Amino acid sequence: MLTIYLKGGQVEVRRTSLPRRPPGFARIRLLCGGICNTDLELQRGYYGFSGVPGHEFVGEVLDCDTQELVGRRVVGEINLNCGACEWCRRGLGRHCPRRTVLGIVKHPGAFREVLTLPERNLHVLPDSIPTHVAVFTEPLAAACEILDQIKLSRGTEVAVLGDGKLGLLIAQVLNAHRMKVHLFGRHKEKLRIAQRAGVATELVSPKLPVAAYPCVVDASGSVEGLAQAVRMTQPRGTVVMKSTVHDTVALDTAPIIVHEINLVGSRCGRFEPALRLLRQGKINVEDMISDKMRLADAPRAFARATQKGVLKVLLE
Amino acid sequence: MLTIYLKGGQVEVRRTSLPRRPPGFARIRLLCGGICNTDLELQRGYYGFSGVPGHEFVGEVLDCDTQELVGRRVVGEINLNCGACEWCRRGLGRHCPRRTVLGIVKHPGAFREVLTLPERNLHVLPDSIPTHVAVFTEPLAAACEILDQIKLSRGTEVAVLGDGKLGLLIAQVLNAHRMKVHLFGRHKEKLRIAQRAGVATELVSPKLPVAAYPCVVDASGSVEGLAQAVRMTQPRGTVVMKSTVHDTVALDTAPIIVHEINLVGSRCGRFEPALRLLRQGKINVEDMISDKMRLADAPRAFARATQKGVLKVLLE
Repeated sequence: MLTIYLKGGQVEVRRTSLPRRPPGFARIRLLCGGICNTDLELQRGYYGFSGVPGHEFVGEVLDCDTQELVGRRVVGEINLNCGACEWCRRGLGRHCPRRTVLGIVKHPGAFREVLTLPERNLHVLPDSIPTHVAVFTEPLAAACEILDQIKLSRGTEVAVLGDGKLGLLIAQVLNAHRMKVHLFGRHKEKLRIAQRAGVATELVSPKLPVAAYPCVVDASGSVEGLAQAVRMTQPRGTVVMKSTVHDTVALDTAPIIVHEINLVGSRCGRFEPALRLLRQGKINVEDMISDKMRLADAPRAFARATQKGVLKVLLE
Repeated sequence: MLTIYLKGGQVEVRRTSLPRRPPGFARIRLLCGGICNTDLELQRGYYGFSGVPGHEFVGEVLDCDTQELVGRRVVGEINLNCGACEWCRRGLGRHCPRRTVLGIVKHPGAFREVLTLPERNLHVLPDSIPTHVAVFTEPLAAACEILDQIKLSRGTEVAVLGDGKLGLLIAQVLNAHRMKVHLFGRHKEKLRIAQRAGVATELVSPKLPVAAYPCVVDASGSVEGLAQAVRMTQPRGTVVMKSTVHDTVALDTAPIIVHEINLVGSRCGRFEPALRLLRQGKINVEDMISDKMRLADAPRAFARATQKGVLKVLLE
């Protein structure tokens, strides 16, 4: 079968044998994969990664212990946790200290013709969600995570910084939950996607509002984003940190203390709320698809995904 | 009357006339003042400050509109707010954007024989709290602020970094509220003060526990404190930021996001909980007094307060 490998900055297409299936695991035929910024960072060598990337996928179950799952179309939670520790018992297996992570930490990823995941990680897809939409479940869950972490009442004014893939999903999720969302970005065409979903948008300018929002989400992906978010947040307000930047950030902590601002780190989330939103058709993900390419064309697809103005590139 | 001035790094003793008393204000004779790290920072020129410092004080009301207050021993909240804006209406006048701050922002401080504050800022002291104890009300309120900002249940393990004045107060406040407090510091003698109040203490070593506490308070006053606090915090845990450092902090945001850690900036607090603790005799502040000097000796007192191993220096 075809397997995509990242090694020393290169995207390689290899022929490998089918993966083994440990007890409790399913083997899944890849139907569609999505290239995420994290995949591009792994390619650049962050975390010293080499191996099979890919954690956004839709697949069809080939074989597993539970016969009813065979042949079903599924998405899968990316954290493989121990199921026994304190975190797992609290329903926070995403923080299990013994976890591996699909395509990121010590479990080969989804960019191969057949992948493996524990059965308990899988969610069967309803027919109403097309495959090229369902492939957004994982990043959409990361956007929904914010609502699991902080209490936001309807009508709350929330600023979202960044019109990349994650910023667009976050803006739409908060909008679907009736926040008053203001999305700030640098790209008219990307902002238009959120506009079509009913989100108010604004091009980033040197004069951004100061101490104006009770909640600001930094999805800018830039080292300046966090300080900018702090400036825009009201006293006692909340900054949600969604930007992983691979530099230390130079941060003036004084305004955080003086204005008693709350910074909340936020990573991946439960799949249920994301699947609910996709089933309800409340999130415009189709406009976010810039390209669809074949798995065998992964090297080109990775290159395409780094180009300016490109949003999601899918592998099929 | 004697008035202490900070100007260009110098502590000056000046003779000035009595301050005017605007309507709604009280004139207060200084009984005791406490030198805070903020005063030392103002001396060093942070915030471009020049003027009368001092915001920790106990005084006796000389004259004011409300006759019952005259002759009473008082402490005073340090934020002079407008009383009319959204923040003031929400009971958060400490964040009023039009506020001035006693001895810090545009209102002459307490290090003078007679100071002024609005009557509504004053709290009459019960006879049971001696003056040299009551002068700790303001920094103790800053320690209590943590409990107004985050929910901590009894028995929660909390690490406090820093055995300076604020660290010692925070450790004791949390201990009085039945948290399991672990105070980490660099000075045996300072740690002993917290030990006598029943707090578990530990000398800082290169090997501090990692991902060990659901809550860590950074009162280290050092630029490394925040990153250290993040390392010691469990996933989904809380770091309380109590250290004002006058440098940008180089922060790796990745662990904050990966472990979904919550950072909470924390500044000054309501006086009521602090006065309650002092009345109940639950906080050992007397061991924190390193020296008592006369107001006229303020230049020497400021110098003393910067010496290694010195905690609180009082002006009488």
